Amino acid sequence: MAVYRETINITSAGSGDMTDLTSKVSEIVKKAEVTTGICHVFNFGSTGAIGTIELEPGLEQDFPNLMKKLVPPSKAYGHEQAWHDGNGHSHLQSSIVGAELTVPVEKGNIMNGTWQQIFHYEADTKSRNRKIIVTVIGE
Amino acid sequence: MAVYRETINITSAGSGDMTDLTSKVSEIVKKAEVTTGICHVFNFGSTGAIGTIELEPGLEQDFPNLMKKLVPPSKAYGHEQAWHDGNGHSHLQSSIVGAELTVPVEKGNIMNGTWQQIFHYEADTKSRNRKIIVTVIGE
Amino acid sequence: MAVYRETINITSAGSGDMTDLTSKVSEIVKKAEVTTGICHVFNFGSTGAIGTIELEPGLEQDFPNLMKKLVPPSKAYGHEQAWHDGNGHSHLQSSIVGAELTVPVEKGNIMNGTWQQIFHYEADTKSRNRKIIVTVIGE
Repeated sequence: MAVYRETINITSAGSGDMTDLTSKVSEIVKKAEVTTGICHVFNFGSTGAIGTIELEPGLEQDFPNLMKKLVPPSKAYGHEQAWHDGNGHSHLQSSIVGAELTVPVEKGNIMNGTWQQIFHYEADTKSRNRKIIVTVIGE
Repeated sequence: MAVYRETINITSAGSGDMTDLTSKVSEIVKKAEVTTGICHVFNFGSTGAIGTIELEPGLEQDFPNLMKKLVPPSKAYGHEQAWHDGNGHSHLQSSIVGAELTVPVEKGNIMNGTWQQIFHYEADTKSRNRKIIVTVIGE
Repeated sequence: MAVYRETINITSAGSGDMTDLTSKVSEIVKKAEVTTGICHVFNFGSTGAIGTIELEPGLEQDFPNLMKKLVPPSKAYGHEQAWHDGNGHSHLQSSIVGAELTVPVEKGNIMNGTWQQIFHYEADTKSRNRKIIVTVIGE
């Protein structure tokens, strides 16, 4: 059994931006040299999210639009009234989607569907430097 | 420390169908012969979801109804306009609920509440053959 | 490689109560003496949820309010009509947010952002004793 860790650094383009992490996560998994195991992907910080989706141009619009519909920006949030930083909805969107994901690993590869990419979603209101912590565990 | 993997194959009955995976996951965990560890359950593909719920007939209706309310089928999705396959909402529902779940394992059993089952939710528009990858890690 | 487990027992204050688990999880992770690994946090039971958020007084109101808006209490749920226990929405809220979370561990500490706390959310309608199972795996 072994553990292998690397951090992916990305700069998101701003509110609603989705980044495909699949190839970077795959490269890290290859280096881990694990035959059977899991790979954990974690967004360090409270206004980003991680998940799986078919990351094509249509859904790249649809997912942020859905977030805006379900958890709209608003000055009425308690977070807003205390901090006035305009990102109450960002925190809530992140908590709803989740900051992390685990995928299975087999023979040095992640086991994901052909149309199932690993994404980072920028829930914050502006471009952010993001640190994404990838941990591979297996044998 | 050991890793054990098996795949569960199910055929969902179509849009909104919920499948109880608890007993099949439990059988795999038993074979893994792990005293203390975790069990990861992953839906291979981008239009299914995995989670925990009390899987009784009432909630088996309520959960798909909630999904339909929060993320309704619509031809207005960008995904729809590009692919015309009628399942833009399916991808979005899957990403919101999540494609995977981890549960603790103790003495060869999953540690879940009495009314806490592991479910697969079919977010796609028709019956699908689903491959669910189960990974047990522990000692 | 090692596995370490402890259970956190909390008593929630009732519907919508959020508990900061960060320091208790951190204490357990310290005892695990793991240099590189992961920590899994699981709510035992079907009407609580686990996630990450900036747990300040504003969001402590905003998150339960969002839950009430997206998944309101109602006697119309199928669960309600069968069981009459008033917590159909509690099950649905729990399944949407998720009952569990994994965070990375490094040098005996969880790797979370400064404003990224681990929370338990009480989705049930009254005060509950909650058992939260924490599992640390790493080397």
